[in-house]
Formats: sequence, C-alpha cells, structure tokens
Amino acid sequence: MDQKIMEKRTNIIYRPQKSQWQNILKRERKSSKNDYGTGLIVENIEKGGDKALLSYLKIFDSLDIEASELEVKPEEFKEAELSISEELKAAVDCAISNVRKFHAAQKSQDIAIETMPGVVCRQKNVPINRVGLYIPGGTAPLFSTVIMLAVPAQIAGCKEVILCTPVGKSGKVAPEVLYCAKLCGVTRVFKAGGPAAIAAMAYGTETIPAADKIFGPGNSYVTTAKQIVSKEICAIDMPAGPSEVMILADSTADPKFITADFLAQLEHGKESQAVLVTTSENLALETLNELDRQMATLSRQEYIAESLGRSVIVVLDTQEQMVDMANEYAPEHLIICTENYRETAEKITNAGSIFLGNYTPESAGDYASGTNHTLPTGGWAKSFSGVNLSSFTKKITIQEITREGLQGLGPVIETMANAEGLDAHANSVKVRLG
Amino acid sequence: MDQKIMEKRTNIIYRPQKSQWQNILKRERKSSKNDYGTGLIVENIEKGGDKALLSYLKIFDSLDIEASELEVKPEEFKEAELSISEELKAAVDCAISNVRKFHAAQKSQDIAIETMPGVVCRQKNVPINRVGLYIPGGTAPLFSTVIMLAVPAQIAGCKEVILCTPVGKSGKVAPEVLYCAKLCGVTRVFKAGGPAAIAAMAYGTETIPAADKIFGPGNSYVTTAKQIVSKEICAIDMPAGPSEVMILADSTADPKFITADFLAQLEHGKESQAVLVTTSENLALETLNELDRQMATLSRQEYIAESLGRSVIVVLDTQEQMVDMANEYAPEHLIICTENYRETAEKITNAGSIFLGNYTPESAGDYASGTNHTLPTGGWAKSFSGVNLSSFTKKITIQEITREGLQGLGPVIETMANAEGLDAHANSVKVRLG
Repeated sequence: MDQKIMEKRTNIIYRPQKSQWQNILKRERKSSKNDYGTGLIVENIEKGGDKALLSYLKIFDSLDIEASELEVKPEEFKEAELSISEELKAAVDCAISNVRKFHAAQKSQDIAIETMPGVVCRQKNVPINRVGLYIPGGTAPLFSTVIMLAVPAQIAGCKEVILCTPVGKSGKVAPEVLYCAKLCGVTRVFKAGGPAAIAAMAYGTETIPAADKIFGPGNSYVTTAKQIVSKEICAIDMPAGPSEVMILADSTADPKFITADFLAQLEHGKESQAVLVTTSENLALETLNELDRQMATLSRQEYIAESLGRSVIVVLDTQEQMVDMANEYAPEHLIICTENYRETAEKITNAGSIFLGNYTPESAGDYASGTNHTLPTGGWAKSFSGVNLSSFTKKITIQEITREGLQGLGPVIETMANAEGLDAHANSVKVRLG
Repeated sequence: MDQKIMEKRTNIIYRPQKSQWQNILKRERKSSKNDYGTGLIVENIEKGGDKALLSYLKIFDSLDIEASELEVKPEEFKEAELSISEELKAAVDCAISNVRKFHAAQKSQDIAIETMPGVVCRQKNVPINRVGLYIPGGTAPLFSTVIMLAVPAQIAGCKEVILCTPVGKSGKVAPEVLYCAKLCGVTRVFKAGGPAAIAAMAYGTETIPAADKIFGPGNSYVTTAKQIVSKEICAIDMPAGPSEVMILADSTADPKFITADFLAQLEHGKESQAVLVTTSENLALETLNELDRQMATLSRQEYIAESLGRSVIVVLDTQEQMVDMANEYAPEHLIICTENYRETAEKITNAGSIFLGNYTPESAGDYASGTNHTLPTGGWAKSFSGVNLSSFTKKITIQEITREGLQGLGPVIETMANAEGLDAHANSVKVRLG
C-alpha cells in the first residue's frame, strides 16, 4: 500500500466519557442550503418534460437519444437475459425467494371495530397506485436494489412499478438490472439517471408517467432532487445518506469476521462509516491489525482507505454502555457479536437492521437473507423504518354510523365542536338529528 | 349577509370533460421557494437555544417569561381541570375511549420466519423514543388534536411525549389543551408557539428536549419549519396543507346533510375547500340554495364566505365517474352518500378518511368516532396514510444465521457481491466459511 493510503487510520478510543460520545460518533452532515443547481434541473423538467430530460441526459449521461428511445424495449430485456450467467441467475432466484417470503409475511390485516354501539371504524391497507424506483449507475450495477424495491412493490399490489436508471459507458442499461427488473414485476424501465430522472418520475413527462412515491438510493444530487420533489408533489422512501455499520462485540467475537464486516461497509464509498464498539481491548487491537491484512487483498482500496479515517474503534467497560452507545448512534446496520447477543438485541431501540452472532455478516442482509437493505442512515433509525411492505401501501380509515349510533355519539361531537368554537361542525350533527 | 360575502359563490359545473378535471379540482399550491424568514428562526433556535426561543416568544406570542417558566407546572394543570365543565369532561372521556379502542386495535404483530434452513428473519415494532406534539393556538383551542396525537403515542409506548402550544391572549395555555394533555399521558407541556417551537423540539434547547419526530398542524410558518427540520434532523408526521372534503352523493342523499358537511369543512379557514360530486342535478341545485340558508345561522361566516369561492359542485353522469374523480383528487375527507355507498367505498383507492352513509358526518371523525383526524391533504393521500398507531413506531429487522445456514446462503451472497463488484462483501462470507 502506498504512503497516502496508510496515513488514514482507524483510531482506538479507550473508555470515553458519555459527554464525548456525540463527538466520537459524529457523522458528516451536509448543509441542505446549497442545492448545487439541482432545483433548477427539477424546475426545468417540470416545465420542459421529455425535451428537457433528453437534453440533461445528453449532458450528464452522454446519452443522445430521442424520446421514443427512452423506454427499454422487449428485445433489450431479452438481450440482457442472455448475458447473465446461470450461476448469477440461480443466486438471484434464491435472493428473490427469500426477500419475497419475508416481505409477504409482513401483510397487515385490515381491521374493523365497533367503538360504541352503531359506530364502526375500519382501517384498510391499499397499495400505492404507481411507484417509481431509481437505480443508480456509477461504479457498480446495483441490481440487488432492484430486488429490494420491486419485490415488496409487487407483493403490495402496486398497479405500476416504473424504474429509471442511467445507461453505462456502453450506452446500455446494466443487464443485471434489466434481468432483475423483469423477474420482479417492474412494468416499465427508462434510461434516465440523476436528478433529472427523479424530477421526471415526480412530475411526469410525455413519456415517463408521474409516480406517487419514489424509492431508491443515489448520489447527493439525486438525494437533493428527492428532497425537493417530496416538498412539492411526490412522496419519497426516506432521507438518504452515506452507509454505515456499528458492531458490538465482546471477547467471544472473532476479529477476522469483525474486520471483514468493517471493510465491507467501507467499500461502499468514501463517505461510509464503520464503528466497532467492544468491551475487549484485545479484540480492538487484533481488529486494527487485521484491518491492514485483509485490506491488502481487496480491490476497492481507494474507497476503503478514505472511509477508514472517519471510522473508529471504541473500547467501553460494560455491555450496558455498548447498548446505550448503539441506541444513541442509531446505526443503519448493527452487528452484535457478543456471548448473549439475543439478550443484547432485545435492548436495542434504534437501528435499521440487526445482524446476530458470528455467522450473520451484514452482506447477508445486503443481498439475500430476506430482510430489506434500504435502511435509514444518519441517525434517522430513531424515527424511520427501513423499506418494508408498508412502504408501498397506505392505510385508509372508513367509518359508518347508524342513526342510533349518531344519537349516542352526536352530543359528544356537539359539545366538543362548540368548545372549539366550530359551530358548523356542531350543526352537521344537529341537522341530522333534528 | 353583506354584498361582499354574497359575491363569493360556489359554482355548479355540469358534466366536465375528463381533461378538465385537473383544472376544476385544482388546489392552491404554495411555492416552497420563499420561507418568509422561517429558516432564520430555525437556525437561531438551533444556535441560541432557550435564549433565542424566549426572544421569539416575546415578539410573536407577546409572552415575556424566563426559561424556568416555559414548562407548564402541576398547579397550572390543576387550575385548568377546575375550569372544564362536567359536560365537556364527559364528552372528552367518550372521545378518548373511542380513539383508544380504534388505535389499540392497530397493533402490528412482530414477525419471525425462516426464509431458508438456518436463516431466520424477524421484524419487530419498536416505539419511537421521544415524540413532540404541536398544538396551535389561534382562533380555537384544538384540544381534539391533543387526543388524536397523544392517545396513539401512549398506546405505542413512546417513552416521552412532549407538547408545545402557544399561550392565548390571557397569557395562559388553553385549559382544554392542558386537561386533554394530562388525560392522554403527555409527559411535559411547554408554552411555545410558531416555527420557534418546532425548531426547539427538533434541535432541543436547555429546557425543551429534542424529539425524534414532530406531529401536529399549524399555519404556513409552522409547516415550513417542519419541512426544514425534516430535512436536517427530525422526522415529521406528514406534509400539511389546508383542510378539504369531497362528497360523493346521488339522489338518495339529503341536501341538508350535504350542505352541513360542506360548511363544516369551510369554517376551518379561508383556504379550505369543499367539492360536491353528484349524479343528481336536483341535489346540486338544492344544495346550492341550502348553502345560503344554513350559512346565515353560523358564526364563522368570514372563513366560510372566503372558502366558498374555491369550492365547487360537479355534476357527473355515472357513479363510476364519481369514483374516478375521487381517486384523482385524493381528498383528505371523503363522504359517500349514495344508495350503494359500501360498494362505492370499496372502489376508492385514494383518500385520507371515508365517511359512509347519511348519518356519518365528517365531524364524527374530527372528534369522536375513533378514527384519527390528522390526515393527508393536498392530494398526498395518494401515498400517505393519516396518523395511526404505526406513525409512533418504527420497524427494526433482525436476522440470525447459523453456520449451516451461511453454508447454504453464502455462495449466493458471494456470487451477487462479485457481480456488483463489491469483493469486500464477498470476503465477509469467505472469512467465515474458509
């Protein structure tokens, strides 16, 4: 490894005071004040539709096509399928099967109860009509994200599932993305990337229909575009930020396994973060040594080296402190490798997804165990769930009151409405019972 | 009624083409580009804490107090309770009981399934730790909203429920708000209103703790503040906008009832909107006449008169068209008064809350039937649910894989990770199985 890479090291911090935790666990928070031109792109797509979209694709995706070529055609799907190896097909089948089983089990029951005589209240789960998925291009074709978003959309019963993704250097969409899109029930795929694609799915263009909710990861421009449209017209899955992992481990953990998970997180990008929290000084030191050893064998060293510098190993005295630190950090991914890992997990209140024991690497959830990999980052796990079946549905309430029911409930409504100074509300009961 | 009031009339539109619907159902969409100084207020609270908050309360709420007086004290709760009539107490009890029954029925089951041998995936519902409720002051003390937000928070098991509300002209918080807050398990109440209160709950001050999610209605400054903090640090319930109702009615409906519901909606504020959609020309005309008659008896004519102008009666040919129009508009409140109202309701895919038949006024859901009244406006019902039990919880996924389980799943993970170019992900399986 060259000198520059070696300069970035992960530090061990021993027994910090609780008052220091916030600073140790600090994430980079980007100011949302400057949108670097994203707002203008969104505005131009809203006004200019296909024409504006095509001109942005020419600039940013080096793609010079007509509106009629935006949508991926059946023959392109066929061509993509032919290029996928049998081994990858089998792996994708297994992942889809597991993701399908776990998300199908999440179906909510509709409910109906009579809250008082003659007053029936219902709650009904209804699929969101049209959802838009965004799959970034960039350094790797994230076909696993197609599975994670399209499978629950299909189980929820969304009528239309559209997908935008940029073409690669070849001018084509990654074949793995098309293959998974077809297998998972995506209705239409469009060759469009970046904030312009987000705006197109939010406002609709002549070719791309407007979605009711947009899902999927992306760089900071895509994230900004999602934030902008979510204020105006179109729901989004969740606030997005750099990926992160926290590992809680004691002396029963294997430093080789811990290190591999640490590095798997860091290869995602230069802004990734990994935090190892341990009660074992030995484990901390062994992991630090193992980091250099394993890193030397990996290909994405550039990303890893950069994010090693924002990663940290923290030594604490007790299991209880480890749990407190995890709940304060609210990690996207939380790996628990302690002797009593199940007991520890029960105390976790803030995390996106939890990985238990020595044989549950985070990569299992990233790809194939069945859980979703679209998870809240940046501490949002305090209030947000990861993508799950309910992300693709909404709950509508329905009430039906009989004349007798209203005779019972009416006076309550009138009294409360009058106390709030809303006599037209009281009147709507009065005219019915009068 | 004076001339000016009579000038604003609700129009009847007969059998519009579908291409005209969007224009007829147009809502006022405020530009989110200008925040009218709200961003600066939020920033100052983040930096200045209590001191900044107190100075804003002095300016906007005419409240000149010390930090130690921000929190409502036990004796103030006692004083409030003494001022509430027995009639109102009984009404509030009934409303709380119904809201509690309906929301308690919404508890989600945790799930656990073995997606393949040795691979167990779980989904667990966990309460959000600390939630912040905002209750506006203004023309009426909205104590019903305290019930609608605090009851599900309590059922969900949120550890802390804080509430901010401005004082009235008397310098005190409305006694109805304090009474309901205490009954529904609110932990602490603070005398703070407007965007400064939202920022205080998002970032925390020396006195007000930072909440993980903020709920509640407010004017456009409060809404803007919620949007700003939701990009930075704190989740919010949903995008908020003016209240609205759509009524689907045929010749079996009673124009007196329809009119009362129409007017109840409009008294909310000058930006409210009501839309009556009917297959009966007679009903349209009778409702128009009845509007003048009933309005004359009501007190909030100023609001009603203003919002009558943005309200409309639409005559369509078929039930099917009515359903289509409702799904396109995605109303916050949808009243269905047709002969086959249950059948009609089954076809509705976009609405916040639905009110069925002649004896279910919207005001029932606003106060006391059991359903929640915090609902998506502005067409957001296409993707958002109203506030419900799950708004106060998040879902954490947990997975546990045995060594044998990883032997089965590992090759799938490795194949997919390598295909995405992420060899550190593949490595985290390899080190465990090697």
